[in-house]
Amino acid sequence: MKEQFQAYISQLQDTICKKLEAIDGKAIFQEDLWDRPEGGGGRTRVIENGDVFEKGGVNISAVHGVLPEVLRKQFSVEEGDFFACGLSLVLHPKNPFAPTVHANWRYFEMYDGSGNIVTQWFGGGQDLTPYYLFDEDAIHFHQVCKDACDKHSDLFYPMYKKRCDEYFFNTHRNEARGIGGLFFDYLKETETLTMQDRYDFVTEIGNSFLNSYLPILERRKAMPYSNANKKWQEVRRGRYVEFNLVHDKGTLFGLKTNGRIESILMSLPPKVQWHYNHLPSKGSEEEKLVAVLQNPKEWLK
Amino acid sequence: MKEQFQAYISQLQDTICKKLEAIDGKAIFQEDLWDRPEGGGGRTRVIENGDVFEKGGVNISAVHGVLPEVLRKQFSVEEGDFFACGLSLVLHPKNPFAPTVHANWRYFEMYDGSGNIVTQWFGGGQDLTPYYLFDEDAIHFHQVCKDACDKHSDLFYPMYKKRCDEYFFNTHRNEARGIGGLFFDYLKETETLTMQDRYDFVTEIGNSFLNSYLPILERRKAMPYSNANKKWQEVRRGRYVEFNLVHDKGTLFGLKTNGRIESILMSLPPKVQWHYNHLPSKGSEEEKLVAVLQNPKEWLK
Repeated sequence: MKEQFQAYISQLQDTICKKLEAIDGKAIFQEDLWDRPEGGGGRTRVIENGDVFEKGGVNISAVHGVLPEVLRKQFSVEEGDFFACGLSLVLHPKNPFAPTVHANWRYFEMYDGSGNIVTQWFGGGQDLTPYYLFDEDAIHFHQVCKDACDKHSDLFYPMYKKRCDEYFFNTHRNEARGIGGLFFDYLKETETLTMQDRYDFVTEIGNSFLNSYLPILERRKAMPYSNANKKWQEVRRGRYVEFNLVHDKGTLFGLKTNGRIESILMSLPPKVQWHYNHLPSKGSEEEKLVAVLQNPKEWLK
Repeated sequence: MKEQFQAYISQLQDTICKKLEAIDGKAIFQEDLWDRPEGGGGRTRVIENGDVFEKGGVNISAVHGVLPEVLRKQFSVEEGDFFACGLSLVLHPKNPFAPTVHANWRYFEMYDGSGNIVTQWFGGGQDLTPYYLFDEDAIHFHQVCKDACDKHSDLFYPMYKKRCDEYFFNTHRNEARGIGGLFFDYLKETETLTMQDRYDFVTEIGNSFLNSYLPILERRKAMPYSNANKKWQEVRRGRYVEFNLVHDKGTLFGLKTNGRIESILMSLPPKVQWHYNHLPSKGSEEEKLVAVLQNPKEWLK
């Protein structure tokens, strides 16, 4: 399973990067291979200052070794080795009408003293963070997520959509980071689902990514915009930073366990603004977005 | 003590704001009075888009009520009421050669069921975050801090300087936020020091603030700078955001206990950039700064 999923994310990284470069037309991904001193490493690819992408990263990593203390506590185990691999991506388009997108698909194994797998699971999801709300974009993104889920179980989309709304929430602002998508974790073997079923599901979601995002990007990437639109995008990106640095478990885990900082923080937007008490004006498009973020909605009938 | 310190910070806020407005010459402080639903409130003053200050806040607050759960755990008490007041300020000058400064002086009381004071202490400090290193600025700032400390005890400056270097440290980057200053906390009554001695010390430090910072600001506020200098300032401000959102106990406490968000996050810089793996060039002024941040030094002989 481990080799199977590692090969999958490696090939998916290639597919996604190639497609994004073609869309950008100007910038190309810069690649950095890195090693983790305690075992494993990664392949970080970052695109910056493009015609379409102001900044973006598509990273894969596969790390292993002794379970870090913070995970031993979390899983209530005294010792053990682990293996974890995954693909993480964040894309910050230049155009403020084009949404930021984040996705992550990952696989985890834990071993006993003899090297036998004690437990294993998949996790991940994808979510959209628009700066201006276009209902058709939100509906498209959720529809692709739902279609991919429905091929495996009708129960998945409602459950993982709800978890996404709950997870990507800036509690200190009482608003969602974006308009959601899917979030799932600890997808283990059950009475009715094998690990291969889980693999088939997660790769189905991974394969659906480009189709969930690119049609939206194509519609928005060349829309004319004003300085005020750009400022609003940069102010809202501040909320993105707040979520990632204050609440996101993955980011904080990386920062506190000696992860590769530049690969972890490639998720941060390129240019960001914080103004005191910045409020959208009444009846504006900006206010319409905030209203939806304060009350995450069902996009599909 | 409580009334005495509250009156002090209220008057100090006026003094500081008046002086800063005079230096800026263009922008003035916008004032917001706010109430805390659970008891108390504050007076937030923010200056933005000035000739000298790109953004800055000088806030006072005095809050009281039932001790929040997170503090009950921290102090290992089962119940009790508290009172806390303080002045917090952060100034982000426009000129990249002028350093950002932060200061905070605060007082805390905890009560038993009958309303008697169980424990009380002062805390606070001030620290400087330059974007370009001028030894004379760092020496001046530390000298003023030391002179104020020395009036009370020769032991204070070395101790509180060290704590400042330890506290304002971005562990995930392995570098200090800035070039330090003073940091002290839990200044309680001891065999040889009364609470009035503590008050005299903390107000001495508070009174020294303008003298520690303004001569530096005067020297730097009108220095010519390039776009590259400004970009470096905005990139380094990213580290300021990282510290405040990932590590700063005061910020995180505020965000997790329903504090007034806009007053807490007024500390965040106005414009910030994050680039992938942004490194200063060899032998540059930028590199010289980073080298000192990685190895906090003694500025005074």
